[in-house]
Amino acid sequence: GQHSLSVRVVAAEPPRGLVQEKMTENAAFSQNKVLTIDTMNPNVKKMEYAVRGPIVQRAMQIEKELREGVKKPFTEVIKANIGDAHAMGQQPITFFRQVLALCSYPELLNDNMFPEDAKSRARRILQACGGNSLGAYSASQGIDCVRQDVARYIERRDGGVPCDPDNVYLTTGASNGIVTMLQLLVCGEGASKTGVMISIPQYPLYSAALAELGAVQVNYYLNEDKCWSMDLSELERSLAEARKHCNPKALCVINPGNPTGQVQSRQCIEDVIRFAAKEHLFLMADEVYQDNVYAEGCQFHSFKKVLFELGPQYSNTVELASFHSTSKCYMGECGFRGGYMEVINMDPEVKAQLTKLVSIRLCAPVPGQALMDLVVNSPQPGEPSYTTFMKERTATLSLLAEKAKLTEEILNTVPGITCNPVQGAMYSFPNISLPQKAIKEAKALGQVPDMFYCMKMLEETGICLVPGSGFGQKDGTYHFRMTILPPTDKLKILLAKVKEFHLRFTQQYS
Amino acid sequence: GQHSLSVRVVAAEPPRGLVQEKMTENAAFSQNKVLTIDTMNPNVKKMEYAVRGPIVQRAMQIEKELREGVKKPFTEVIKANIGDAHAMGQQPITFFRQVLALCSYPELLNDNMFPEDAKSRARRILQACGGNSLGAYSASQGIDCVRQDVARYIERRDGGVPCDPDNVYLTTGASNGIVTMLQLLVCGEGASKTGVMISIPQYPLYSAALAELGAVQVNYYLNEDKCWSMDLSELERSLAEARKHCNPKALCVINPGNPTGQVQSRQCIEDVIRFAAKEHLFLMADEVYQDNVYAEGCQFHSFKKVLFELGPQYSNTVELASFHSTSKCYMGECGFRGGYMEVINMDPEVKAQLTKLVSIRLCAPVPGQALMDLVVNSPQPGEPSYTTFMKERTATLSLLAEKAKLTEEILNTVPGITCNPVQGAMYSFPNISLPQKAIKEAKALGQVPDMFYCMKMLEETGICLVPGSGFGQKDGTYHFRMTILPPTDKLKILLAKVKEFHLRFTQQYS
Repeated sequence: GQHSLSVRVVAAEPPRGLVQEKMTENAAFSQNKVLTIDTMNPNVKKMEYAVRGPIVQRAMQIEKELREGVKKPFTEVIKANIGDAHAMGQQPITFFRQVLALCSYPELLNDNMFPEDAKSRARRILQACGGNSLGAYSASQGIDCVRQDVARYIERRDGGVPCDPDNVYLTTGASNGIVTMLQLLVCGEGASKTGVMISIPQYPLYSAALAELGAVQVNYYLNEDKCWSMDLSELERSLAEARKHCNPKALCVINPGNPTGQVQSRQCIEDVIRFAAKEHLFLMADEVYQDNVYAEGCQFHSFKKVLFELGPQYSNTVELASFHSTSKCYMGECGFRGGYMEVINMDPEVKAQLTKLVSIRLCAPVPGQALMDLVVNSPQPGEPSYTTFMKERTATLSLLAEKAKLTEEILNTVPGITCNPVQGAMYSFPNISLPQKAIKEAKALGQVPDMFYCMKMLEETGICLVPGSGFGQKDGTYHFRMTILPPTDKLKILLAKVKEFHLRFTQQYS
Repeated sequence: GQHSLSVRVVAAEPPRGLVQEKMTENAAFSQNKVLTIDTMNPNVKKMEYAVRGPIVQRAMQIEKELREGVKKPFTEVIKANIGDAHAMGQQPITFFRQVLALCSYPELLNDNMFPEDAKSRARRILQACGGNSLGAYSASQGIDCVRQDVARYIERRDGGVPCDPDNVYLTTGASNGIVTMLQLLVCGEGASKTGVMISIPQYPLYSAALAELGAVQVNYYLNEDKCWSMDLSELERSLAEARKHCNPKALCVINPGNPTGQVQSRQCIEDVIRFAAKEHLFLMADEVYQDNVYAEGCQFHSFKKVLFELGPQYSNTVELASFHSTSKCYMGECGFRGGYMEVINMDPEVKAQLTKLVSIRLCAPVPGQALMDLVVNSPQPGEPSYTTFMKERTATLSLLAEKAKLTEEILNTVPGITCNPVQGAMYSFPNISLPQKAIKEAKALGQVPDMFYCMKMLEETGICLVPGSGFGQKDGTYHFRMTILPPTDKLKILLAKVKEFHLRFTQQYS
């Protein structure tokens, strides 16, 4: 009886029994893990980064499915989600890469295949490196001669406003500089917790870094009706509101704008500086798109230059950090993670702390530092590489200007899509009207409506955009960000597909 | 009367008056700054990093003084403070630099000057890059094919223990990986605040990162009498103590050791793993010196391999992150900031959070990723570069082994200096006896005694070492860390000068 029963059970149900045991074991393991979603750093959980978020992960899956022969209504995924110029076919500047090759393998200095100016740049950089090697750590603040070259570049750019190389820090891309500055600024708890004002829409590095640091994100809205300009009254509203529950200490501006593509006027920058001075705010100016200005009548004005033009009352007091990078402009060298920041009017004791902080990470990648040097010390008239360099630079920037115009024009032909001019940077951030039925369906699925829209576009057309909700937008408005970087022929296909999709989507949900 | 007095005062004291006014103005400015030493992030203030601390800053000043012709009792500063191999004259591996040059400037692929294996490696890396360019962002976790190569390398190294490329993350040097892992782990306040066990002496990246994150540093002492081995009883003591006031969640081990140069035995690693399993600790293994093993009878055992050899009870449960880098071993390519980490048994939800976290920093520098690929996929027998590669690699490692021996031997001839064998890594961490009188004088000056000693040595001999207090040591003991990296002739001079200085110092304060 008992014996045979036991045998029967064992014989009849071994697989289920085994599976069950294994599952229980796994559950026990998972419960027993030291590091779980419940025990990990809660600030990290709060961080979000839409530019590489769920939609991009799905795009990568779809690419894999296409490779495996899965049938789709399209044959390739077009990624317009990230400002990754080389990945979109933009060619690197020949001179930069020649010098980098020479620095990497100095044997090539003995060869006749490279122009003399490339060789002399490489020699100069190598002489400033420990053991004449890119493989040595640099000083934590960056290679001396590179910081000097950066300072001279800033002086030329700003019509002679002086720049002290000692205020220049080389960084691992601009992102690293921005996070480092925010890290210095953040302190306090409760109502005295540091608040940082950021534009909405914003580049999500800012919101992510603030979440990571446990600081308060203070939103100010850009004025979409006035081509994403900054309104003083909106800054005042935002600040007054924030002061009720935190201690706002810094104001971040991205100019030219990401994701919104505007170029702020000189007047606007002046207003912002006066506002920061009056309200006792540390200014952070993200100026990585400083060469990416396309629209007629628009011009890049650095915060530093305007600050100095406002006179000593401002230039001696307002604290400013500005950021630049090798990743954007005509270079598009994202992979090298090169960048710098300049700090103005920083308290010397704080500056010593900043230098200590960066020393713990040892140094920014030296190849990226070398590349940053070439950007700020590019071939000059009379040097052998000058003509080619200028031709390449101009070609890239002209093409971007064309694509900016093209994008704006085509998008504005679509009923239900309204698009500000892409005055600068690398993105269009059009406003899209979504039918109520679509909004309802999205909400029923637990999705933000523009995520629902972009995901559907990806599945139906293979086009990968980032929903506006990933950058922030006024409640009840919807947008997407697309880069203008795909090659012109592909960009035209992309825009035609977006148009087609939007019409179909609108019809489907009307 | 009054008038002449006033004139007299003005005439006699204008400088003081002016200075005073200027100072008041400055003080007012400083008080008015948004970001001051009092309003900045207090965690950043707590961070310390002796390897680039005050002694190194003074060394740089002295170098400048020498260049300006200031007379000193020496003609050059010898820096033995940091593991910066190329800065100390170590030559890069030819093959690595050839491939990096090819990747930087792919035009060179058409040239006949490079060996075929270098070209094929470069082609393979470029094909895995967006737009075939090092200038494109890589996937956040790192370039796919590099992660695959890393996984195969780990499998070969560990005698076939499987490695999933999906568990490999490419990092910006090992430092960045370590900080990222600590960042995931840290949470809680008060008695439930995360504690992390680190060896004393330690590499100060750990203490700095824990201060930055506001976590509790839990010290366990290495056993200097047993060649800096780890004692189980000491781990138990340390953990029991820590549990009274925090929540210890992780245990960090550096093997081979920095700053102490020991190589842990297989038995010791086994004990540590059993301890971590029993005590529910996340293991972090800093294995960046895995090729730097010199002493006879010593061998590198990876934590992962030992973990798997202990059987499924351990290999299915113990959470482990291990770290590697392009900066150490025979490569010494610090400036490229290349590295990887492998995570074992990480909760899938946490892993998704880790992937999200690294995506916000976009990606590790791509040239560093390419270099990491070459390290794990170096020339193989039969390939054209194999012989040269092996010759260079072996020469570097043999030279390091010689210098390790030389350092130990000479230091141990000095009365008052006792030095464990440099079994591995790149450092000696000798124990120094300091006379009571010297200790008193140091304390009177408000200096830690071994900082006083090292600073005096720098001023008198030009030798730059790091005081033991920068790494932590048992109360009442004193040490310094010196690298074994200077070229042999310079190392001999350095050791002779250290000897001479120590004798003089001892005599002076006896």
